[in-house]
Amino acid sequence: MKNTALIMAGGRGERFWPRSRKDLPKQFLCLTDDGKSMIQLTVERIRGLVDIEDVYIATNQNYKNLVMEQLPELPVENILCEPVGKNTAPCIGLGAVYIAQKYQDAIMMVLPSDHLIKHNKMFLKTLKDAIEIAEEGRNLVTLGITPTYPETGYGYIKFDGEAVCGNGYAVEKFVEKPDYQLAREYLNSGEYLWNSGMFVWKVSSILDNIQKFMPATMEGLNRIKAAIGTEAQQEVLVKEFTEFESESVDYGIMEKADHIFIIPGAFGWDDVGSWNAVERIKQTNELGNTVTGNIITIDTKNCIIEGHDKLIATVGLENLVIVDTEDATLICNKNNTGDIKKILENLRICNRTEYI
Amino acid sequence: MKNTALIMAGGRGERFWPRSRKDLPKQFLCLTDDGKSMIQLTVERIRGLVDIEDVYIATNQNYKNLVMEQLPELPVENILCEPVGKNTAPCIGLGAVYIAQKYQDAIMMVLPSDHLIKHNKMFLKTLKDAIEIAEEGRNLVTLGITPTYPETGYGYIKFDGEAVCGNGYAVEKFVEKPDYQLAREYLNSGEYLWNSGMFVWKVSSILDNIQKFMPATMEGLNRIKAAIGTEAQQEVLVKEFTEFESESVDYGIMEKADHIFIIPGAFGWDDVGSWNAVERIKQTNELGNTVTGNIITIDTKNCIIEGHDKLIATVGLENLVIVDTEDATLICNKNNTGDIKKILENLRICNRTEYI
Repeated sequence: MKNTALIMAGGRGERFWPRSRKDLPKQFLCLTDDGKSMIQLTVERIRGLVDIEDVYIATNQNYKNLVMEQLPELPVENILCEPVGKNTAPCIGLGAVYIAQKYQDAIMMVLPSDHLIKHNKMFLKTLKDAIEIAEEGRNLVTLGITPTYPETGYGYIKFDGEAVCGNGYAVEKFVEKPDYQLAREYLNSGEYLWNSGMFVWKVSSILDNIQKFMPATMEGLNRIKAAIGTEAQQEVLVKEFTEFESESVDYGIMEKADHIFIIPGAFGWDDVGSWNAVERIKQTNELGNTVTGNIITIDTKNCIIEGHDKLIATVGLENLVIVDTEDATLICNKNNTGDIKKILENLRICNRTEYI
Repeated sequence: MKNTALIMAGGRGERFWPRSRKDLPKQFLCLTDDGKSMIQLTVERIRGLVDIEDVYIATNQNYKNLVMEQLPELPVENILCEPVGKNTAPCIGLGAVYIAQKYQDAIMMVLPSDHLIKHNKMFLKTLKDAIEIAEEGRNLVTLGITPTYPETGYGYIKFDGEAVCGNGYAVEKFVEKPDYQLAREYLNSGEYLWNSGMFVWKVSSILDNIQKFMPATMEGLNRIKAAIGTEAQQEVLVKEFTEFESESVDYGIMEKADHIFIIPGAFGWDDVGSWNAVERIKQTNELGNTVTGNIITIDTKNCIIEGHDKLIATVGLENLVIVDTEDATLICNKNNTGDIKKILENLRICNRTEYI
């Protein structure tokens, strides 16, 4: 069966401000040392399993040009522009009907475009294991990440250690972001994995489940599918998609469906959730600094400093994130990166949209 | 007797980097809220006592244009360009012979160009008291500052509380920058004042003393004086000045001379020795931040932030100095401003003179 992939790239993440902007969100940034953007790395990573003409990118109209620029080999008709964000379930449904329109049936991988994976070979091996399970019946496979600390920012998935299918385990339940105490219990129990938001299934399997649990959405998707390649394509897409209920695939489908399996991955996954992640994914020097650009540091430790041509000189600093761009400079305590959104709120209130 | 002033403006202070540069040292910067540079404030301050045509500026060729720009009313022939820095004694001698060439005798005030004074009226009153003493015999008067804490960065002057002359006290000795323990003793004794580097004397008095204690310098100064207004003026100045021994007036003259008096001043003197001084001389907001430019602060306390048009956003910071200029940004712990010179050393070693 053909392998296909839907890469979700509609996010508007604010946590990498001032580098990320409404016109240049995280998935289009180069955050690693190799000069490739996160979406480029995502596509490159699966090229051994999926032909480029079978890679679909779900994004929105604002980012279409960025996708074309960064992925010049991708057929432009594979860029699916959501007229409005409706969370992951409608997005996945849209990808599924486009693939279904091309192939009678196919394996469909669903991947976020703004996560990093360190061990690509292990990742591909895990995907192959997932494909093997997904090819059976109506199985839906999710990739779980073996947790290494009690993270409170991720969803968790409880699995049944007995019920196995290939290298996968039967999923008992999806749980939302826990508090610290609960996260520790999940970690210590050994029965939970982090929810990575990566899925593998047959197109027919996911569409069957959408039909079953989100029938109204499925009706709209069918109308969108019927219009693909016709003159009405865009008009139908806008009309139907706009009316979809906003729903995540986790809660709209995965929580309710049968035959859900999870494969634990240990392929060096990182969701690069904030500037703090940069020191995990880039070279740090002997003082713990991660430095890019024209920088002089004096008595400076454990700082992340991203500049360009302009000289940045630091003296006596510790534990800061410093990011300089053409029109804005951020200086943020590493313990407060969650509050970068307050800057954006402030800018929005003052209508200073040029900085957002 | 005519009042004249020599304002010393040849300094190359590095402590306000990146705003101060070799082509724009501290005395030409606006560091206060009123939009005037330190040298402009210095001249303005004494305008009630000295006519502008009797104000002389000692500087060097590199800064001549800056002086002309910032002090357009000053006669250009009053800008005395030292061919090379030789510390304060030769500089003062140069000013003295220029004034002596114009007036038979005159009161000469010597003032640094890069200090601030908060209470101008009290300062003028102190200068008048000093003039009164200086007009007697061969008296040399220095303005001392009543110390308020055990500063280790200034010289101190010990005075004799009994031997008074008008509002002045006889000076016992000049002492160099003390260590902390000694500075505390000086402070507690009540017998020491800070050395402000401001002097008042008759031109004839200082020239007599130069003749007595630095006779070789006096010979050269006489040759410079003889050449003033002739075609050879510049050539003689360069030749003679270059051969002067480098010497401060404190140690070359004041330590050795008789009839030295000091007037304690409490006119809100500030030598603005580092970025930390900015919060003493500018408005701070309710969180202790001193902010100029296009700034958004989130959870930021006791910081000095100087920007311009470019947005600077801070999150979770405390006790930092942040200075943004066209081509360089400094981020410095307030406790480490003394190490800013290390940045300049680094730049010099790497021959990156564009930033110096």
